[in-house]
Amino acid sequence: MAEFARPLDSLNNARNKRVIVELKNGKRYVGELKAFDIHINVVLENAEEYENDAPKRKLGTVFIRGDTITIISPQA
Amino acid sequence: MAEFARPLDSLNNARNKRVIVELKNGKRYVGELKAFDIHINVVLENAEEYENDAPKRKLGTVFIRGDTITIISPQA
Amino acid sequence: MAEFARPLDSLNNARNKRVIVELKNGKRYVGELKAFDIHINVVLENAEEYENDAPKRKLGTVFIRGDTITIISPQA
Amino acid sequence: MAEFARPLDSLNNARNKRVIVELKNGKRYVGELKAFDIHINVVLENAEEYENDAPKRKLGTVFIRGDTITIISPQA
Amino acid sequence: MAEFARPLDSLNNARNKRVIVELKNGKRYVGELKAFDIHINVVLENAEEYENDAPKRKLGTVFIRGDTITIISPQA
Amino acid sequence: MAEFARPLDSLNNARNKRVIVELKNGKRYVGELKAFDIHINVVLENAEEYENDAPKRKLGTVFIRGDTITIISPQA
Amino acid sequence: MAEFARPLDSLNNARNKRVIVELKNGKRYVGELKAFDIHINVVLENAEEYENDAPKRKLGTVFIRGDTITIISPQA
Repeated sequence: MAEFARPLDSLNNARNKRVIVELKNGKRYVGELKAFDIHINVVLENAEEYENDAPKRKLGTVFIRGDTITIISPQA
Repeated sequence: MAEFARPLDSLNNARNKRVIVELKNGKRYVGELKAFDIHINVVLENAEEYENDAPKRKLGTVFIRGDTITIISPQA
Repeated sequence: MAEFARPLDSLNNARNKRVIVELKNGKRYVGELKAFDIHINVVLENAEEYENDAPKRKLGTVFIRGDTITIISPQA
Repeated sequence: MAEFARPLDSLNNARNKRVIVELKNGKRYVGELKAFDIHINVVLENAEEYENDAPKRKLGTVFIRGDTITIISPQA
Repeated sequence: MAEFARPLDSLNNARNKRVIVELKNGKRYVGELKAFDIHINVVLENAEEYENDAPKRKLGTVFIRGDTITIISPQA
Repeated sequence: MAEFARPLDSLNNARNKRVIVELKNGKRYVGELKAFDIHINVVLENAEEYENDAPKRKLGTVFIRGDTITIISPQA
Repeated sequence: MAEFARPLDSLNNARNKRVIVELKNGKRYVGELKAFDIHINVVLENAEEYENDAPKRKLGTVFIRGDTITIISPQA
């Protein structure tokens, strides 16, 4: 199990892996984590949008504004 | 597939292309990305507003305040 | 079509023109853009307030606090 | 018509005049604008509170926290 | 009538007097204003809580976090 | 009655005493105030959670994020 | 009972222990606290998500954005 000194280290560990990003408005995006910054703005590629646990549409690249995010979790 | 060191690089990559911008209030704007800044304030041109996935009205230039934005995605 | 290096350039371009300002609470103000700052606080003159797309009342000068604004668009 | 270089200039112009201050929670205060700062915190005197366009109660001096304000407009 | 150069001067003027503090969640506190700071955090003593204009309970000292406050008004 | 120059002085005065902490989401925590900082993040020990004025569960130590807090009051 | 000079000391004390993290949207995460920062961004491992007090799904590592958190409490 990885050791993370700081929370952003865990995001760095997930770079180029598929992650789940959940938003305050209930939407969920799943895609490869390509970039993030200290505001937790993130960029996913090959992303899909889910609503109410159901896939809704495919998005290529998606920029997600950090202040709308609740959690980010590497896909199991 | 482009490599982005930072999230704003992905927005820079989308400059002058048509992007989808979604807001916290459920509205969606589609237009050419002309400008953005670190607050994610953006300017679109030849923009159209959508509500509930239906086109609602045409806007020429539209300035969108960053803190109302959830995602920005280049149109497939 | 104008080129904007930064989003605030587009607001500068709209100075003294009639713009539509929409708020998070659903209200809309239409008036001449007289001033704005980096917080997107704006001042309109000869402003009218709309609610649910219907004109509601005339206001002379109106100061609008930036953090309540979603979009600003020059009137077509 | 006054020219304002910056939005706060319009508030300065309204000092000691009766203004309408509207809040995010739908309340409206009408009174003489006595003071304001860069956070748009304002102080009104001889203020009255309105709810749903109806007068509700008289307040002498009222301090209004800036981040609850949507618009400020000099009373016509 | 007092002259206030800055909004916080009006709070300073109300120190040790009974004030009404209203919150975004609709609650109201009435008590003696003992302290405040630039975030508009305030401390009241001999405070009472009101909900829907009805007294609900007595609190001795109460610290109120500034960002939950809409207005502060000296009790008439 | 204590004199407080600044609001945080009142919290310092309540250290190691039982306080009531109320949140924006309607929950209430009662416990011994062990620590706080300028963001009003607080730590309570021997804490109990209340919902709708009824005790809900016992928590040992609880860290409460400041921006969710409305009021803090020493228990009478 | 531990003495904490500052609220973040209590989080440091909980490192590598199972904690409950509750969010503004009503969700609850239980897992081992691996990292946190001054924004209260946290990383949990071997995390489980609960909704309405019922377990909903297992997540391996989860990054939780600080501004969505209400409380963090070491599991009894």
